[in-house]
Amino acid sequence: MSQEIIKIAEQARQASLVLQSTTTEQKNATIRKIREFLEKDKDAILKANQQDLEKAKAEVEAGRLSASLFKRLDLSRGDKYQSLLEGVSDVDKLPDPTGKITLATHLDDGLDLYRVTCPVGVLLIIFEARPEVVVQISCLAIKSGNAVILKGGKEAYNSNVALYQSLQNAIKSLPPEEAIPLASVQLVSSRDEINELLGLDQYIDLVIPRGSKKMVRYIQGSTRIPVLGHADGLCSTYVDEFADINKSPKVVTDAKVNYPAACNATETLLIHSAVLESQLPAIAKSLVEQGVTMRADERALAVLKTTDIPADKYQAATEEDFDTEFLELTIAIKVVDSLQEAIGHINIHGSHHTESIITEKKENAELFMAKVDAAGVYWNASTRFADGFRYGFGAEIGVSTNKTHARGPVGLEGLVIYKYKLYGSGNAVGDYGAGKRSYIHSKIPINQD
Amino acid sequence: MSQEIIKIAEQARQASLVLQSTTTEQKNATIRKIREFLEKDKDAILKANQQDLEKAKAEVEAGRLSASLFKRLDLSRGDKYQSLLEGVSDVDKLPDPTGKITLATHLDDGLDLYRVTCPVGVLLIIFEARPEVVVQISCLAIKSGNAVILKGGKEAYNSNVALYQSLQNAIKSLPPEEAIPLASVQLVSSRDEINELLGLDQYIDLVIPRGSKKMVRYIQGSTRIPVLGHADGLCSTYVDEFADINKSPKVVTDAKVNYPAACNATETLLIHSAVLESQLPAIAKSLVEQGVTMRADERALAVLKTTDIPADKYQAATEEDFDTEFLELTIAIKVVDSLQEAIGHINIHGSHHTESIITEKKENAELFMAKVDAAGVYWNASTRFADGFRYGFGAEIGVSTNKTHARGPVGLEGLVIYKYKLYGSGNAVGDYGAGKRSYIHSKIPINQD
Repeated sequence: MSQEIIKIAEQARQASLVLQSTTTEQKNATIRKIREFLEKDKDAILKANQQDLEKAKAEVEAGRLSASLFKRLDLSRGDKYQSLLEGVSDVDKLPDPTGKITLATHLDDGLDLYRVTCPVGVLLIIFEARPEVVVQISCLAIKSGNAVILKGGKEAYNSNVALYQSLQNAIKSLPPEEAIPLASVQLVSSRDEINELLGLDQYIDLVIPRGSKKMVRYIQGSTRIPVLGHADGLCSTYVDEFADINKSPKVVTDAKVNYPAACNATETLLIHSAVLESQLPAIAKSLVEQGVTMRADERALAVLKTTDIPADKYQAATEEDFDTEFLELTIAIKVVDSLQEAIGHINIHGSHHTESIITEKKENAELFMAKVDAAGVYWNASTRFADGFRYGFGAEIGVSTNKTHARGPVGLEGLVIYKYKLYGSGNAVGDYGAGKRSYIHSKIPINQD
Repeated sequence: MSQEIIKIAEQARQASLVLQSTTTEQKNATIRKIREFLEKDKDAILKANQQDLEKAKAEVEAGRLSASLFKRLDLSRGDKYQSLLEGVSDVDKLPDPTGKITLATHLDDGLDLYRVTCPVGVLLIIFEARPEVVVQISCLAIKSGNAVILKGGKEAYNSNVALYQSLQNAIKSLPPEEAIPLASVQLVSSRDEINELLGLDQYIDLVIPRGSKKMVRYIQGSTRIPVLGHADGLCSTYVDEFADINKSPKVVTDAKVNYPAACNATETLLIHSAVLESQLPAIAKSLVEQGVTMRADERALAVLKTTDIPADKYQAATEEDFDTEFLELTIAIKVVDSLQEAIGHINIHGSHHTESIITEKKENAELFMAKVDAAGVYWNASTRFADGFRYGFGAEIGVSTNKTHARGPVGLEGLVIYKYKLYGSGNAVGDYGAGKRSYIHSKIPINQD
């Protein structure tokens, strides 16, 4: 274990202890200063980004890097830099998630218990390409009072370092009485450092990997530290026997084509046999118009063949297709004979991310939403709504398919935990029991949002 | 991987999917039936327990098992069996933690989002000695809608099997329309099975080890499944410079002697140098009267020597003493020169479990409670209050020193997570954006407890 890595983790821990009692105003002042510096340092940052892009271009040409990864690396595309700046201001405006009372109980006279939200402590964020993550995550961590160690991908090395230096200079520029510790945000770069950091569970409280499923699983298997998994998603949309034909083509098409590479895009279309002939042609036509190709099971294939859809737009599905996240304009189609069969298929083949039912029958919708085990269960809406901004969280750390701590789109709330504060007056446990005092356990009203 | 273990995990997963939509009344009917059967089967269960006790007695005599472990094994001691039955009825009376709306947002007209609590899924509980855990955890799991796989210690093998069979017979006795799946509760026995189960993260959602720190750490390091850690506790009580001498001896003594083997017992006493001479003698006298021996640092030792406390009741502390969970009538004593030094010591040497300050000065108490990073931060109260029953949770899974999901004493709430339910009317994400629809994001009032 290198001393340098231990020092980084120790410094993060010390910073996190200071951040436990940093005021909202101090945190916001830091975030505003970060925006100021990012505006000031724009040219230098884009120059560094240009260096990464030149290297990446060669990698793309050599076929070692995908074009979409290259796009994501580019900070000067369209209004990307402006969005990055506005994202910083958005976090400034969000309410502080710490210090909220979530339970208050009068245990006895002179003995009151409060459960109060507080930062988790030290976060380790591991991310690939997108350099803007440095800024986004740093601001969310500061706002929630967490220290953060960032580990970015090597493709974005120069961009990450330039953004990080701008952030550090912003923190340094504040008068000491307003400043958060400099070690609140730290950046590490080499891959070796990751394995060392994953062993430091005495300093690091939560790991958030943002990347491929393979990377997330590797990290989960390599550490005692809790992992907030941002896995990919295999989402399904089920067109029920009582689906409205005015809704199904629109919702299914949006769910597939709105952003096919996203984890909340629909990969599998389930359709009830009762509406197969009446609705599949319209749905398929709408999909094909948007460039989608279909992998259909036998019964769906038979119906597609009766339409005027060109035969090169569909083919027979393999079993594997129903376990595949295509992340592109391909959809698997399966016919089911009951709502129960649809639910069963989703619970086995889905990734517990987001699943939608199209139906006009409330009982079917409620049964689907109760029995499907997923972070999001939707009725007559596109799976693409699974997103922190759309949910109204203002900002998002990512989407979690964990079933503990935070599930679904994760906003600032996912970066806090709570502590119990007990206000006594000299109380001993030995005062209570048979023939002695009894607990009152009455609710104390909570006056806050 | 044995097929039998995979089958157990698969069955648990199937049961958990059914439990997702089991009604409160069904769950309560099962819990009441369990109490009925445990009363009926009392003689058979105590007979099985007797077999375990006889084997254990030989182990104690051979020095391979501790007397306290032997005591904990005994289900016929005092009113233990009656407490076990009453614990079942307590869970029946607790509110169902699932189906509670914790967030409701109007995203747009015809598009409403609800966050609703739901079961985690499949729990794996690993526990040592205490056979009553079989009953307690099974009832809490059923009430929260989780399927559970129980792995007990070999010392309690016969007792665990007898209790488990009584539970199974209770479930089987219910009419099918009221019954929960039989696989909602399963018991496994051999140690090999644990390692296999820890690899089945596709079926098991949460592991709760109840046992030694060593066992908890082993499990954390051996699985991708989230672990709710019930570690031991190194709790401290800090007697501040503004402590009231009418409170400090009482609170410190209760915190040490009320149940020294518990994780919330105080192991370290920190005392401010300004009250060392005025308060330590009274505190020490109170401790010694209850049989406590002291490990004191140099300055504390000098003061103890001026008292009439027998010299065999105290000795010089080693550095190691401040990192030791004695779990018996021994306390380490350290003198500090400031509140900040006390906070620093606790954040480094404590286990982030429960820490108390004795002071009359509100600012000092608030600073301590803000800056100490622990699940419980107390003011003028014994650390022994860290307990689900005392907090008013009605029942407790254990105490967590995790900083994600559930922290401190964990009641039924720690066994639930949430899902997002989105009620749409044919909505597509593509309908929103610049020049298109905007999100409304208004709060929907929640009418429930």
